[in-house]
Amino acid sequence: MAVIKSISEKYMKEALKQAKKAYALGEVPIGCVIVHQDRIIGRGYNRRNTDKSTLAHAEITAVKRASKYIGDWRLEDCTLYVTLEPCQMCAGAIIQARIPQVVMGCMNPKAGCGGSILNILEMPQFNHQAAVTRGVLEEECSALLKLFFTQLRERNRAEKLRKRETGQT
Amino acid sequence: MAVIKSISEKYMKEALKQAKKAYALGEVPIGCVIVHQDRIIGRGYNRRNTDKSTLAHAEITAVKRASKYIGDWRLEDCTLYVTLEPCQMCAGAIIQARIPQVVMGCMNPKAGCGGSILNILEMPQFNHQAAVTRGVLEEECSALLKLFFTQLRERNRAEKLRKRETGQT
Repeated sequence: MAVIKSISEKYMKEALKQAKKAYALGEVPIGCVIVHQDRIIGRGYNRRNTDKSTLAHAEITAVKRASKYIGDWRLEDCTLYVTLEPCQMCAGAIIQARIPQVVMGCMNPKAGCGGSILNILEMPQFNHQAAVTRGVLEEECSALLKLFFTQLRERNRAEKLRKRETGQT
Repeated sequence: MAVIKSISEKYMKEALKQAKKAYALGEVPIGCVIVHQDRIIGRGYNRRNTDKSTLAHAEITAVKRASKYIGDWRLEDCTLYVTLEPCQMCAGAIIQARIPQVVMGCMNPKAGCGGSILNILEMPQFNHQAAVTRGVLEEECSALLKLFFTQLRERNRAEKLRKRETGQT
């Protein structure tokens, strides 16, 4: 069990490295890696505003790269590690790609579709279900997001103040 | 009402043209167009096996192209036309892209997420909901899919017979 935990943590750390790339760009820090036979075959981080694309979520980029590596739309025998519970689109992509295992960092109670609002990953009505592990390096994943949103609020407050002082609406 | 119906049918015919491109490739015939100010700004058709990519669904390709045209991940003031009820990934992408209007051809009772298995498009729990119109050119959309699956079954039966006759397993 300790070994399994350390493997999960090893790859969640890699997903966190990806999330930090998003943070450096001023994007919501979410990162993802896809692992096949103890090798990372797809990496991704949130670049939604940078790329001006809804599809630039961490998981979608990782799925795209892993598919290219495997040469198939089916990502069987793969494990996806993501720092934040996936949204409805990304949870859907995981099921469409038939990824069998998903490991999450922290949950997203307001919009997550891996157990919060919906549980698209484990719905028996679909033709594929993933085995889900939650809470791996939860505190680190959560702390990075909290830092981002605290700084964003501070920036927004400062900007508002600056506009008021300079008479801009 | 007749005018609205004819506009919906006009663009669903364009989505059907896309679906026929998928059919010509031997892919499940699903097509999509995204319309902004009475102009098609994104087209897509299913190329999942051809491109060996889960992300090659009709709607995802259309969203990608429309985002590029608009220059934003938000596809506000757009209407998406799709010949078949979207899967969980594509319904998710529609909500993530904040597309306000979705027009569907036929439903997908086994896997659809625009009212069949789930209704991701209209869930009040998410921060965006689309207004959905169902059943536009339903028979044409459905007939193309039925033709594809009938021919696929026939090909599979013939292949099985050929293998049995030539002694292959």
